Amino acid sequence: MTGSHWIDETGLLHVPIVMTNSFATGAGVQGVLEYCAREYNDKDTGLCDWFVIPVVTETFDGYLNDIGSFPIKPSRIIEGIEKANGDPVKEGNTGGGTGMVCAGYKGGTGSSSRIIPGKKLVDGKEIELTYTVAALVQANYGTKKDFRVGGIPIGRLMIEEEAKVLADRTDPEAIIKATENLRLQEAKEHKKDGSIIVIIATDAPLHPTQLQRLAKRATPGLARVGGIAHNSSGDIFLAFSTANEIQVGLKSNYDPWTATVPRSSEGFVDDWTINALFEATTDVVEESIYNAVCMAETMVGPQGRKVSAIDLKHLRKLVTKFT
Amino acid sequence: MTGSHWIDETGLLHVPIVMTNSFATGAGVQGVLEYCAREYNDKDTGLCDWFVIPVVTETFDGYLNDIGSFPIKPSRIIEGIEKANGDPVKEGNTGGGTGMVCAGYKGGTGSSSRIIPGKKLVDGKEIELTYTVAALVQANYGTKKDFRVGGIPIGRLMIEEEAKVLADRTDPEAIIKATENLRLQEAKEHKKDGSIIVIIATDAPLHPTQLQRLAKRATPGLARVGGIAHNSSGDIFLAFSTANEIQVGLKSNYDPWTATVPRSSEGFVDDWTINALFEATTDVVEESIYNAVCMAETMVGPQGRKVSAIDLKHLRKLVTKFT
Amino acid sequence: MTGSHWIDETGLLHVPIVMTNSFATGAGVQGVLEYCAREYNDKDTGLCDWFVIPVVTETFDGYLNDIGSFPIKPSRIIEGIEKANGDPVKEGNTGGGTGMVCAGYKGGTGSSSRIIPGKKLVDGKEIELTYTVAALVQANYGTKKDFRVGGIPIGRLMIEEEAKVLADRTDPEAIIKATENLRLQEAKEHKKDGSIIVIIATDAPLHPTQLQRLAKRATPGLARVGGIAHNSSGDIFLAFSTANEIQVGLKSNYDPWTATVPRSSEGFVDDWTINALFEATTDVVEESIYNAVCMAETMVGPQGRKVSAIDLKHLRKLVTKFT
Amino acid sequence: MTGSHWIDETGLLHVPIVMTNSFATGAGVQGVLEYCAREYNDKDTGLCDWFVIPVVTETFDGYLNDIGSFPIKPSRIIEGIEKANGDPVKEGNTGGGTGMVCAGYKGGTGSSSRIIPGKKLVDGKEIELTYTVAALVQANYGTKKDFRVGGIPIGRLMIEEEAKVLADRTDPEAIIKATENLRLQEAKEHKKDGSIIVIIATDAPLHPTQLQRLAKRATPGLARVGGIAHNSSGDIFLAFSTANEIQVGLKSNYDPWTATVPRSSEGFVDDWTINALFEATTDVVEESIYNAVCMAETMVGPQGRKVSAIDLKHLRKLVTKFT
Repeated sequence: MTGSHWIDETGLLHVPIVMTNSFATGAGVQGVLEYCAREYNDKDTGLCDWFVIPVVTETFDGYLNDIGSFPIKPSRIIEGIEKANGDPVKEGNTGGGTGMVCAGYKGGTGSSSRIIPGKKLVDGKEIELTYTVAALVQANYGTKKDFRVGGIPIGRLMIEEEAKVLADRTDPEAIIKATENLRLQEAKEHKKDGSIIVIIATDAPLHPTQLQRLAKRATPGLARVGGIAHNSSGDIFLAFSTANEIQVGLKSNYDPWTATVPRSSEGFVDDWTINALFEATTDVVEESIYNAVCMAETMVGPQGRKVSAIDLKHLRKLVTKFT
Repeated sequence: MTGSHWIDETGLLHVPIVMTNSFATGAGVQGVLEYCAREYNDKDTGLCDWFVIPVVTETFDGYLNDIGSFPIKPSRIIEGIEKANGDPVKEGNTGGGTGMVCAGYKGGTGSSSRIIPGKKLVDGKEIELTYTVAALVQANYGTKKDFRVGGIPIGRLMIEEEAKVLADRTDPEAIIKATENLRLQEAKEHKKDGSIIVIIATDAPLHPTQLQRLAKRATPGLARVGGIAHNSSGDIFLAFSTANEIQVGLKSNYDPWTATVPRSSEGFVDDWTINALFEATTDVVEESIYNAVCMAETMVGPQGRKVSAIDLKHLRKLVTKFT
Repeated sequence: MTGSHWIDETGLLHVPIVMTNSFATGAGVQGVLEYCAREYNDKDTGLCDWFVIPVVTETFDGYLNDIGSFPIKPSRIIEGIEKANGDPVKEGNTGGGTGMVCAGYKGGTGSSSRIIPGKKLVDGKEIELTYTVAALVQANYGTKKDFRVGGIPIGRLMIEEEAKVLADRTDPEAIIKATENLRLQEAKEHKKDGSIIVIIATDAPLHPTQLQRLAKRATPGLARVGGIAHNSSGDIFLAFSTANEIQVGLKSNYDPWTATVPRSSEGFVDDWTINALFEATTDVVEESIYNAVCMAETMVGPQGRKVSAIDLKHLRKLVTKFT
Repeated sequence: MTGSHWIDETGLLHVPIVMTNSFATGAGVQGVLEYCAREYNDKDTGLCDWFVIPVVTETFDGYLNDIGSFPIKPSRIIEGIEKANGDPVKEGNTGGGTGMVCAGYKGGTGSSSRIIPGKKLVDGKEIELTYTVAALVQANYGTKKDFRVGGIPIGRLMIEEEAKVLADRTDPEAIIKATENLRLQEAKEHKKDGSIIVIIATDAPLHPTQLQRLAKRATPGLARVGGIAHNSSGDIFLAFSTANEIQVGLKSNYDPWTATVPRSSEGFVDDWTINALFEATTDVVEESIYNAVCMAETMVGPQGRKVSAIDLKHLRKLVTKFT
């Protein structure tokens, strides 16, 4: 992820978050900057008097995508910024998620949200309201043997059934051996276990340290689906809140040498009441990965490389059996 | 420093900060807990229904203090909490700073503060006010050869003059050699370069991420006096703000599963106007170390180990000469 | 955890790791220091010329333990150091784990280990060998509704069965309401969700950055059992390797100003082959928690506060049913 | 800096480090990837079976450079990689440093190195040798009023002399006022205090945690020249060692599930002897900044924006006067 040092240092997010493939990072950065140049360069002089550090997140889809030919150009990023609106994000083989592989199945983009009860003190009175916590993931990680749905070891069960077909169905030892072979084959083919991008958004007023706490609660959601973050997996978690909008500094009329406190209409969530936000975060991350996998479709990449979507009927059968 | 994980995770400070020597850490923790037990245990049952993690900071004074005999007891910490009031902190050989050594001179406790201009937006109007940034240090670090005051290499100059006395005053080579010997001797005697505790306090409203930014600006203050943080130096920087008082969670009536936003009368300083707070932080750290060294007095420890206070007249002479 | 800054800065572990309750932290620190003073103070002068920062880890057992009366004394820590030997660690209500509560069941101490295949290059030849990864946990965290074993939601299932007994067994709405009441009651009684200590040990040669990677893989193990790290949970993960023993600096004859490279008989594990160590870490953490819960016994604390051990027969029945 | 997460997680550096301006980050990333694609894509299929995360560092030169027109293209980065050789790096207005401003003077690229004594244990015998620590900086930070050389407040002295020219030379109050005006003007013109890139290279064998220690010792070097890291300053410190070359994982024949220890001919520097490396790091960073400023030449940017090089004669006069 580019731009993380600025966020770590200030807790501020000034730019759209780009989700793309690893080798489109350059295009992602360039696209955001070209968009800003077009919009914010001085109209008279053409010069730039603004400053941003683009936030570009990425996972590697080199198996299904000929990424060494750099198909994503900066213009595609600009297009993405221009077209962004309030519509639901399309899931599965869309956007940055197009070529992703998750737990040996076709992966991709997934999202999920939860509404939780909240309270706000206004003039000493408690006003009841709700807050939303949502996740958007680009799922490209994990091995099939670890894949779980609702706690059920779906990946292992599917490998075993596949092995039964390959092996003599009546010979337990042959089944065990075929299962082991399928696992080894999986390990070999995908030496590079991929990564996952998790973006958490909320309208609950949280300060940067609280947002870091939220981001950390993505890990248990990942783990529920089977992730342990293998070597070379670069899992990216970022949480932001829409509650407090802060004017970008460079346009500020404030004197940099006079400490100025801007009016704040919101306070921040009391840490002692943050648990529902934590639980919602873990839940939406878990569900987003399910959505990414279940909405993805079988895809064929260069040289006939094929990754099949999960068999939803089979999945339903196994989930029903073990619940 | 004990208790840092809680502060890192929540940004909240619930306890008095204890500054003591390394081997009194246990007594420091125990003292704070015994104080809390006495004050907050349930009066009827005697049981504890509260929770804190003490924040005990320490530097090592094993040269001047027989710390292996553990002279500081928990009762001394309780006494410290009870006696704390608004009076100015005594500097030099006081409190945790009693046995400290700084840059080869007698070190100790030092403090300093700055008042900076501020503005607050109230009902859309700008109200002018001031904020204070203050440091309290326990200075126990550095080597004489690196010691500087206002940029002037006082430590090196004093070593060279000492060498002239030891060497033949007219033979430049002998002076250089004697200087080198004095430096080597210093390195040998104080193999364990000590550490420094820096506590930054401010009444400017800053959120935890901003307080971390402040704490990081202690390093340049340290560096101005000559510190580079040698091996085994465990420099402790902690910044806190008194602007927003937050009720301790365990006593809260809030429901932990309903995200509650407490009323906040203050906003937070706009990052774009934070520079004066940064500069003040660096300045007060620098000045606090000067105060620690200049207020300290010569001390003799076990077995006649002696550390001399800096010669203030000599210091003044050198500062005057090179300004 | 005390002493973490030293470990973060140097990657070195010089002291025994103490696992105790939160309010015995002071005794833990003091105990280690008193032990060192007795063993390492100069025999002639009685003075200390050594330096360590004790590593004391803690979780809060204030429900079952009258911790505000400070029953653990430094002498108990010294006794622990003296009695440490190669015997297997006793699990359940032992040591620091005695008063712990995990997921609403009696918690405590648990351990687990895995042996994984390894290779070492000696004089250009590959020698096959094995490495061990082990965990020791003090489990004091989580809520019953989240507790899972092998993916099966044991906690939720047990709450539902309990609710059926309380409610009219034939009225689904009454069961749902009773279940909800049991959950709310659980939330109220244990407002302070506890924490967990996880110590990972291995004989695989790993450098400090690799050990941090190992420690991070404890989180998925925790998550498998249902943990999401609620507010006030201070989860402590520490991994160390026994492969490279490094002489304590203060006793070193090396000159601190001459960079000295000590001979190293081992290299370090190639990151590209570290996955089995990661998986083993996650597995042993998961299993250690099961062991802590399954080996613990029902305990009654002050004022008749009682926490029941998990019903192992019931657990077995549920696990069998859903596998 | 892009690529920092990989380095933080593994401690490994696989790519050339690009130093450029902020808005050339996209071109920097793209250039490294295009270079790798050209060199490492499969010759038959044209597909990529490699993986790197480019490390691109940047500082903002929008005052002297029309960076909103994106003059740096990926081809320029490829050219840079191809032309890299063992020649000394040119200092001043070169490379990424071309448009930089440092402490109100023309800034740029600077470098410096130190040779320190070392020892290596080979077959039980101590072999004497030397290690090198070097810095390469892109200096684009600081305000004139803070600029110091060898402790002497050169920036303040120069501002005061400039003010004397502007004010009535005989009226002290007018001089003070003019000085203050010059400072305020400086603050206004350069609202965005820039940043600095510091790359530390050494041939001493250090593990990743030790390299992080080295990188942290850049801050005192910066502080000696006057830096306190104002808001929006994104100071980048990266240290690497050339002592242990590690084969890139993706080409490895190792089995990812068998922990493999590669032979290591070097050990690592004993932390107790690391101080000379720390001091050298601080020194080379300080000197590199002096070199960047003293080798830079006056430059005129778009719309006649001009930044003057420091007046070397004046600098020499002031340094001589106060030494």
